[in-house]
Amino acid sequence: MSNIYQQMTDDELRVARERLSCQADEMRARHLALDMARGKPSPAQVDLSRPMLSILGSDADLFDEGIDCANYGCFEGIPSARALGAELLGCSAEQCLVLGSSSLLIEHDILAMFWHCGTGGAEPWGSYSAAHDGVLPQVLCPVPGYDRHFGISENLGMLNIVVPMTETGPDMDVVERLVATDDSIKAIWCVPKYSNPTGITYSDEVVRRLVSMKTAAPDFKILWDNAYCVHDLYDTGDELANIFELARAAGHEERVVAFASTSKISFPGSGIAFVGASHELIAEFSAYMKAGLISADKLNQLRHTRFLPTSAALREHMAQHAALLRPRFELVETMLSEGLSNTGLATWTHPRGGYFVSFNGPVGSARRIVALAKELGVTLTPAGATFPAGQDFADCNIRIAPSYPSLEDLRAALEVLVLATHVVGAELAAQERGIA
Amino acid sequence: MSNIYQQMTDDELRVARERLSCQADEMRARHLALDMARGKPSPAQVDLSRPMLSILGSDADLFDEGIDCANYGCFEGIPSARALGAELLGCSAEQCLVLGSSSLLIEHDILAMFWHCGTGGAEPWGSYSAAHDGVLPQVLCPVPGYDRHFGISENLGMLNIVVPMTETGPDMDVVERLVATDDSIKAIWCVPKYSNPTGITYSDEVVRRLVSMKTAAPDFKILWDNAYCVHDLYDTGDELANIFELARAAGHEERVVAFASTSKISFPGSGIAFVGASHELIAEFSAYMKAGLISADKLNQLRHTRFLPTSAALREHMAQHAALLRPRFELVETMLSEGLSNTGLATWTHPRGGYFVSFNGPVGSARRIVALAKELGVTLTPAGATFPAGQDFADCNIRIAPSYPSLEDLRAALEVLVLATHVVGAELAAQERGIA
Repeated sequence: MSNIYQQMTDDELRVARERLSCQADEMRARHLALDMARGKPSPAQVDLSRPMLSILGSDADLFDEGIDCANYGCFEGIPSARALGAELLGCSAEQCLVLGSSSLLIEHDILAMFWHCGTGGAEPWGSYSAAHDGVLPQVLCPVPGYDRHFGISENLGMLNIVVPMTETGPDMDVVERLVATDDSIKAIWCVPKYSNPTGITYSDEVVRRLVSMKTAAPDFKILWDNAYCVHDLYDTGDELANIFELARAAGHEERVVAFASTSKISFPGSGIAFVGASHELIAEFSAYMKAGLISADKLNQLRHTRFLPTSAALREHMAQHAALLRPRFELVETMLSEGLSNTGLATWTHPRGGYFVSFNGPVGSARRIVALAKELGVTLTPAGATFPAGQDFADCNIRIAPSYPSLEDLRAALEVLVLATHVVGAELAAQERGIA
Repeated sequence: MSNIYQQMTDDELRVARERLSCQADEMRARHLALDMARGKPSPAQVDLSRPMLSILGSDADLFDEGIDCANYGCFEGIPSARALGAELLGCSAEQCLVLGSSSLLIEHDILAMFWHCGTGGAEPWGSYSAAHDGVLPQVLCPVPGYDRHFGISENLGMLNIVVPMTETGPDMDVVERLVATDDSIKAIWCVPKYSNPTGITYSDEVVRRLVSMKTAAPDFKILWDNAYCVHDLYDTGDELANIFELARAAGHEERVVAFASTSKISFPGSGIAFVGASHELIAEFSAYMKAGLISADKLNQLRHTRFLPTSAALREHMAQHAALLRPRFELVETMLSEGLSNTGLATWTHPRGGYFVSFNGPVGSARRIVALAKELGVTLTPAGATFPAGQDFADCNIRIAPSYPSLEDLRAALEVLVLATHVVGAELAAQERGIA
């Protein structure tokens, strides 16, 4: 299907490009300096958690169910925080550890454990290559996906293998075929709810297939980063199946490692982070981590659970986040529809939660669009960032992160994105017919 | 030199043992349940930092020299916290990272980096063995020392090599001889001020020899855990030389990796932790850690630097800690002197800071003393804990941790330690002459 510029005559296309060039000059003259690169909560969202800062005052009771949160000990996390984590992850509190402020760091550490020590008595992933003619252990990366995930596995020395994302999760026909016979495939990265960046939520069927599929590797792991588990934009959010229940039913609970944090609930970077897994895996990981950690920051855990003591308090708090995020996501939808509907130039997703919209321009356009937007004063997530090693071979995907800018700035940034898409679309059309 | 029980006649010894046995029965009847196992600050010490909890209230300014502490970013730590770390470590703020709440975890992570990636272009420590006929990379462990240090290197797969501690630091004649020719020796663990457990402070001469000695390994590292850098018991504390200055003068700044935290300044486990090293090493470590960490908890950093904004505030705060710790250390000195002076049964150290006293009973006594103390209601640090793999071959060293118990409890615990030392000393004397 061709786009509006491909359908034009040469003359029409030249006129259109001149017009677009003028519009770009006008835009350039606005000297914008806007950042839509990362999924940062806005200052107004961050302020929602300010009351939490006063909740543990100098005369506060610093005990949590008998645990002294102000001194060493309780490596596994305080009881109320483990309960919060269990609620977010869908496992039991005993299956949940509360460690530090970054779920990304827990993901890094648990993969490092698999790499260096193995799990469940299997050989360390890091030894796989030497024992198998130099074949590297692999991790499946549904694309577009989260750049920092891919960075963790790449850094360890794993091979990132792309698999396609669909509107209901990873393409399970592809996944099942790959893992069934190849025991070098050790894991799959998943952001199962409001996926980064497409915003889709895995269907029950996809979750069921993930936990029940035959894997050649006995130590295959589903890296279940449930980063947006309570991050709905609307009262009725997407429903994600409980992977622990389905995994238990399938006899593969050992396969699941789930992560979450409060970074996008309370303070980005100053939240508390959780990991949930089978009792055996939690015992393994505890032993591994205890070599270097006496206990995590329990006062911050207590601060969080005093601020969000009940499911209702959490829901209410997230509804306030949604009230700030919803207009931004709706503005993205409106502006992209107004500027790009029926042009054949772009498609984009329509998330009902999370932090991102995934945008696809014409093949070969993404790097140019991002570069032109930068020139016009808008920093977008680098093109390719949603693919392992930054390699989007179609060069069409751009991650839109609308949370941080004000509505006014977001409108300006989207004007730039729409204009840049038109400019690059017309440029590509001209190149195709050799009149560029 | 023989002890009082060895000097007794058989009859005297029998009478003495009967008397000691009665005393032990009386002690047992007190049903004590005391813990002197770990270097935990007492509740009163922890309370000294309670005002810090109120310092970042819900309407606080959350910026630090232009850095928004309430959102993502600033991996290296906020400016004021880097300055605090630089002051504690004796390096420049640019050479200091503020990461998480645990210096132990930073130590673990930096050794993991050396192990997996190497440093300064040298081969990874973890590859050493394969390239050198199975010889393991080694780390020097001055003993008695800190069990968790030894655990970190052991866990990675390094060989812990004991070297003797003296009253001025590691025995440098031994250290220099070992490192000069053996390039498998990659590092030395140091707690240079108020060493754990002996409480001694390294002399200027020892520091100078450490940074200037010839090492066969070009990537040799001094792991400088300055855990007790501001933890003086008296107004005039021990003076530790600035290792960075001496290392720079010797042309070996790359050799130093220094650590500190506020765990025993503010809240144990909920403090902020620092690493200081050469610019090159800090750049290497930042790149390594950024794979898994966007930024550490900057709100906790800000809370700390608002609470301790100046050197004077820090000094004043530590003086309050000292006021609580000093009577405990003095009680240890008094009780051990009263109970064990001129018996030939034990020696102990007389620290002017830190958290521990190192106690040496007769050869072959430590495990029995700790076991008997446990039976009498007092938990001591396990015998052998101050040695790699828990192997104190002389079986005589016990780490005394007087900080946590109340003075009353500490007195009772020390009565038990003194009694147990007498009981075991008499028992050993009887065994020596075959009348046990």
